[in-house]
Order: sequence, then structure tokens, then C-alpha cells
Amino acid sequence: MVDTDVRPPDPLQPDTRQPDPQQPDPRQHVVILGGGFGGIAAARQLDDPSIRVTLIDRRNHHLFQPLLYQVATAGLSAPSIAAPLRQILRKQRNATVLLDEAVDIDLDQRRVQLAHGTLDYDFLIVATGATHAYFGHDDWARYAPGLKTLDDAFTIRRRVLLAFEHAEREDDPARRQAWLNFVVVGGGATGVELAGTLAEIARHTLPREFRRSDPRRANVLLVEAGPRLLPAFAPDLSEKARRQLERLGVEVRTGTAVTAIDGDGVTLGDQPLPARTVLWAAGVAASPLGQKLHMPLDRAGRVQVTPELNLPHHPEVFVVGDLASASQSDGKPVPGVAPAAKQMGRHAALRILARLRGDKAAQPFRYRDDGALATIGRMAAVAQFGRVKFSGLFAWWVWLVAHVYFLIGFRNRLVVLLDWAWAYWTYQRHARIVTGSDELHGKGEALPDEV
Amino acid sequence: MVDTDVRPPDPLQPDTRQPDPQQPDPRQHVVILGGGFGGIAAARQLDDPSIRVTLIDRRNHHLFQPLLYQVATAGLSAPSIAAPLRQILRKQRNATVLLDEAVDIDLDQRRVQLAHGTLDYDFLIVATGATHAYFGHDDWARYAPGLKTLDDAFTIRRRVLLAFEHAEREDDPARRQAWLNFVVVGGGATGVELAGTLAEIARHTLPREFRRSDPRRANVLLVEAGPRLLPAFAPDLSEKARRQLERLGVEVRTGTAVTAIDGDGVTLGDQPLPARTVLWAAGVAASPLGQKLHMPLDRAGRVQVTPELNLPHHPEVFVVGDLASASQSDGKPVPGVAPAAKQMGRHAALRILARLRGDKAAQPFRYRDDGALATIGRMAAVAQFGRVKFSGLFAWWVWLVAHVYFLIGFRNRLVVLLDWAWAYWTYQRHARIVTGSDELHGKGEALPDEV
Repeated sequence: MVDTDVRPPDPLQPDTRQPDPQQPDPRQHVVILGGGFGGIAAARQLDDPSIRVTLIDRRNHHLFQPLLYQVATAGLSAPSIAAPLRQILRKQRNATVLLDEAVDIDLDQRRVQLAHGTLDYDFLIVATGATHAYFGHDDWARYAPGLKTLDDAFTIRRRVLLAFEHAEREDDPARRQAWLNFVVVGGGATGVELAGTLAEIARHTLPREFRRSDPRRANVLLVEAGPRLLPAFAPDLSEKARRQLERLGVEVRTGTAVTAIDGDGVTLGDQPLPARTVLWAAGVAASPLGQKLHMPLDRAGRVQVTPELNLPHHPEVFVVGDLASASQSDGKPVPGVAPAAKQMGRHAALRILARLRGDKAAQPFRYRDDGALATIGRMAAVAQFGRVKFSGLFAWWVWLVAHVYFLIGFRNRLVVLLDWAWAYWTYQRHARIVTGSDELHGKGEALPDEV
Repeated sequence: MVDTDVRPPDPLQPDTRQPDPQQPDPRQHVVILGGGFGGIAAARQLDDPSIRVTLIDRRNHHLFQPLLYQVATAGLSAPSIAAPLRQILRKQRNATVLLDEAVDIDLDQRRVQLAHGTLDYDFLIVATGATHAYFGHDDWARYAPGLKTLDDAFTIRRRVLLAFEHAEREDDPARRQAWLNFVVVGGGATGVELAGTLAEIARHTLPREFRRSDPRRANVLLVEAGPRLLPAFAPDLSEKARRQLERLGVEVRTGTAVTAIDGDGVTLGDQPLPARTVLWAAGVAASPLGQKLHMPLDRAGRVQVTPELNLPHHPEVFVVGDLASASQSDGKPVPGVAPAAKQMGRHAALRILARLRGDKAAQPFRYRDDGALATIGRMAAVAQFGRVKFSGLFAWWVWLVAHVYFLIGFRNRLVVLLDWAWAYWTYQRHARIVTGSDELHGKGEALPDEV
């Protein structure tokens, strides 16, 4: 019967439940906010039955963000780069995952206010990351979606694919071309990846499939306000990235500021450019939860932490990942990349374990730079490992191997490799499906004509 | 420069465009409405350069609907069972795909009114299929989503996964159990598949991952108003399906009518059952486009066609697939299944080609029954090939091989097989990600608490 009676669990299987949550648990309680690279690394490091760990995220999955642009450009399906947080931590019996959102933090009471209830902690690790920012132009968000979540990726995929569909249906040449003009704002790694892949789609994936319009007439423009692409890399690699992008068919404009974005396109300085598809890869702002810590924030909203990664007067509260403003030993800031977030998460967890053992000595965080990689498109990438720099096909292979290796879970790696091998040989991109509420004529919302 | 100038196509590649669509094309024009099994089969059969074909669909992908329940239950990713219509027809040079929606048909003028423009035809094949129906209870749709599109599948996946998350967060035993009660309405193939898979998820996939609630306390109830499950199969197979479902942990109630559905659960007769997750697999209604043909419709809204599958006074207009009400030679109706839609689509195309050759002799459609298969869950299925009937593990293998074989495209088949092999050995379901606008706390819409 389906009712409120409780059917006893199958006696053949072990009971998976922990003691009644109403009963007080005497163990020290570590609360982790955020299931990204920093939060997951911390949770795994805290695999110790003498403490209990609660991981809070408002999404049910960990996302392998370095490959999110592949979902946005229809090369990978979402499940290939996302794994349920519960699945990742299922064997770690001291860890509980809750789908919820932290809305406030009471440092004095050591209590997190969630959207559904509260949670007391002995130690807190805040790892809620960053989101994209529009530098005070929040009205641009509607026209130029950014890329931080799977839903963002679906929005971009939908708009890119529908732009070519609109072009196919459009008889007026100027209006058709506006659907074939793509502008990517921001010349960091995400912008470079998006622009290179868009050019590949237009030139190689789609041409044979359209009868009235020609996808090869698509223009992909990458705009960067600063003087060069990929500012985190050495200047000669920036130049190589630019040349590789241009070879793929991308037009690159550095030193160019976007002054307006609306439904018709972008304005560069005072020059309007018609483009129905604009993608935002320019600004990053730390999670607004950082403001709840009442600590000094830097310009990007990040929390200034001690060398040990905790709050100055709260050694029990750590901030890791993109939300933390931390410095390397040479004074340079720790970069906002996945390896740094992982290292910080592990460091915070190790400091907590040390303190529980009674070790009070301060142990500053040291960032180990494992090098930087950025892919540009088909068989093109740049790589920088200390003083070793290279680019082109070999860098692309290194990038591919590194990214597949770091994807969580064997199954994902295998399927991702197959997807890529298939896409490489056929130029096909298998995830080219349009779904969601602004689908053409779908769900009563006819977005693409207006946007 | 990105502007309205048109960049010439790369001269190294062949021009893919056809003659200017503004110029009249002297060839006979076949318009196909709908890119499902019927429409795609017709388009492929019409691969003849002496005619031109235009396929209209409001979605950009063909969907392998028999496996849609696997997307709804997080076993497969959406791209594994969907292929872009353009990709399917990319090598067929006489076929154009347009993403649009037919809103009216003028039989006298031989013209289709689209959401964006009009299209004149010499022959028309209407293959817009069916959707789910709530028997006059459209208000139930909000609480009990059906399963016809990928967006439907995402909605079901989201609600099922979030129900377990709510249960984990809920301390009140009665409210927790309401989140763990699942009701599937309708005992046809879709209902049986959904119920069996839900039981598998609750008993095998999730238990180790929750700490406060026990997913094995989930109740899955399958309700069917008629006297038996799977009415399209022989009665002894219905009984076998029931027993296999019960072995998987599903409670089956036949001869039971649902009288109400709301946010608290369902009412069976006059007995209310609390259940926060209700899935609808009960009713099918033909596409509303059938009403635009001004022909007699049957009870399910399907169009009565001649034995040749065209409209009585319009031999140039064919109706195929789930929208057509056609009879077999023994008077029994042609069933609403994928093989029938394919056969009807091919028949309509062959009749058009024959008439263009001057062959006016009537050629009635004959449905070839290749047998019926329904899967029930892990290693359980029923099969019926003429007088040969079997069930259990062997039927499940036949079902698996048949469905992988018929999936369009080699790549999909391989990845689907890998997904299944992986799921089989590990009980894991790799597509367990929650996305979309009613995500918990996401996009300002906190659906699951209300629904």
C-alpha cells in the first residue's frame, strides 16, 4: 500500500542509515558549502570516521567546469561532465550531502542559515566559487549569456543552434547575416575555447546540412578589452593563440571595449555590429555568500584570507577556491583555476584534521603551479609549464590527455574519449539537440526572435 | 569585420547551397510535417533528385521515443537517443529541413500555413503524431507530467531525483514518506517501464548514497484502470509482466481508476494516497493538426484515412503514424507503434513515387506485424511474435538487441551499449543530473515544494 506506513527495508541489504539525526552526534562537525573542485577535495580529505562532514550544494552534481564549453557547443552531453555529488561521496560513510542553499552565516553562533533550516558547525569550509559578472551592466545578461552552469551551457547551445536555423529560414540577406554573426566577449580561456569551437562548427560541422543558407558565411568575432588574449599565459603564447584562432576562421580584436549589448548586437567603442548571438566570457565575480562573512573583499568580491586560508579572527572558518583571495609566497595571487581550488580544499581539510589532533602550529598554504593549458580548437592549444612553453598539435594532445584524466570517474572518461574520437573523425557533434523553454515555438515562449 | 557584408565561402569546399529559393523550382514538391518515425521514413524513401522534399518539424531532432523512459529515469543522456534531423538527411540533396510549425492546412490551395510563412505542396504527408491526454482533466498535467518529448523526460527526471533529496531533508516521517511514494498512472508499455525502473533506482541505485532517509522505503505504485497491464499483449504475458514488476518491488493495481490528482497525491476511487511524485502514462491524443484537415476523427482525435492512407477526396494528402486511424486487412486497427509509423511513412512515399510515374492503381497499406516487446526492468521483459510468446531474461535480451539496433546512427548504438553495460554492472545511472528552471532554488522558481 502506498501510504504513510513505512515498509521495512530489505533485510538482505545492510541498513544504510546513520543514527537518528534528531539525536546529538558527539563528533566534530565540518560543514562544507559548495560541491565544486574545492569542496569535493576537502570532503574527500576529511574521510575520517571520528568526524562528520556535511556538504551543501544547491545543485545535485559536481561539474567538470573546464569542459563546460564542450556542452555549450554540442560536443559533449551534460552527463559526461557532471557526476552526482552523492555518487562521488557514496562510499565515504562520514559524509552527508544535502541539496540546499546557504543564505547566511552566523560566525559567532557557528551556524549556517540554509534555505531549508539551519546547520551548526565546528568547522566551516566556504567553497561557493564564482559566477560571471557584467561590470554593472546586468541588463546585458539577457542578450549575452555567460558560462558557469549546465543551464548556462544549454542556453548557449540552444541559441547557437537556433541562430543557424533562423538563418536558413530568413530570406533577407542582411537579417540572415545578423543570425550568422557571432560575438564572443572576453579573451580568456573560456572565450578562446568558445570562439574556436564556433568557427569549427560553422566551417566543418554544419555546411552540408543547410540548403538555403551557408553556415560557412558565419563570422566569429572574439573581442578582448585588454591588450592580448589569455593574459595568464606568456605574451608569445598569447600571440600564438591569436594566430591559431585566425587560422580557424575567428576574427580577433584586442584592445577593444564593448560599450553596449542589446537584441540587435554589440557596440564596440562607437561602432555598432549586428549580431543576434553574443556570448559573455569576460567577467567573474565571487559568490555573494562572501559578503555574509563581514570581512574585507577584494575588487572581484573575493574574501581576504590568512596565509592558512581561514578568516583572521575565526580559525575555524576556511575559504577556498574562487571565493578566496589568497597570495602565493612571491606575493602573486593564487589563480582562479581548478587545480588551485583542489589544493586549497585539501589544505583546509588537513588543517582541520591537524587542529583536531591538537596541532595548533600555523601552516601556510603553498600553491603548487602544475602549469596552464588552454585549448583553442581543433588540434590547437597553448601550454605553459614553468619555463617550458609550447603550442599547436602537441599542446592539444597534452590538453586532451590531462582533461580526460582529471574527469571524475572511469565511465565518464571512456565515453568522453569515444565522443571526442568520433567527433574528431567525423566532424560531427553528437549533442546537437535543442531543448528547453525558449525552444522555437516551445512552451509558449518564442524567445529567439526577440533576443 | 562582423557586419552585413557577406564573406565568400571557402573556395576549397563545394558549395552546399541549392538554387536560390526565390526562383521557382520546376520539380514536384513533397512537404512532410513531422520528423518522427513516419516522417523520417517517408523522407528517406523519397530520395529521388527529380522531386524536392521539405521536412518541417518544430524541434531540431528526431527522437527515439521507445527509449525516452531511460532519459526520464537518468539511465541515458538525451543526445544518446536524439539525432539532429539535418544530420539524418544531410546526404539527401533533394531534402530541405526547416525548423518551423504547421498551424493550418489549406487543402484546396495545397498550402501549409507555418508559424513563419507558407509553403505550397504538390503532395503532403502529415506525420505529426500524438501527445499525452488527460481525459478532460488538463489541470492534472501540472502534477502528473507525461512522457512524449525530451523536455518531458527532463521534468520527470528532475522530479524523481528531487523527491529523494526532499526526503533526505525532511524530518517528519509522514511528509518524508510522501516524498518516497511514487504513483505511475497507466499500465501500458511506458507505465510499466517507468514503474519498473523507479523501483530499481530506489532499491539498487540510491540506497548507499543517502544517510538520513532510506530510498528502499520508496513505494512505487502502478495504477491501471483496465483489467490488466499491457493490453496490447496476450493475457498470460500481462500476468507475467505483473509478476515481474512485483518481484522488482512495484505494487500493481489494475481495475483502479484515478479520480483526482493534486499537489498532495492521487485519489483512487475515494481513497486518497499521499504521493509527491505522480507520473502520467495513461492517455494518448492525436496531434491537434488533424483537426485542420476537416475530416472525420476517431475518439482519440486520429484522422480516418483510406486503405491507401490518404484523405478520401485528396489523393495528394497522406496521413501516417499515430495521427492516422487505419485498419489492417482483418479489420483490426493498425497499432500506434514505431514500426507501424515507419511502414506507413514508406508506403505514402512509395505511392507518391508511383503516381509521379503515372501509376494510378490503388495499393492499400498492409501492416506487417513484426511482433511486440515491452521491457519491465532489470533483466525482465515480455515478447510476442505472432504465436510465439516469451518473457523474463531472454525477452529482455531480445528487447535490448532490437532497441540498440534500431537506434539511428552507429555512434549512438555504441555509446548506448556502453551506458547500459556500465549501468548493468554497477547499478549506476550516469545521467543523474538535475537541471532546468524548476531546479531547487534555481532561477527564482522553487517548484518542488509546491508541486
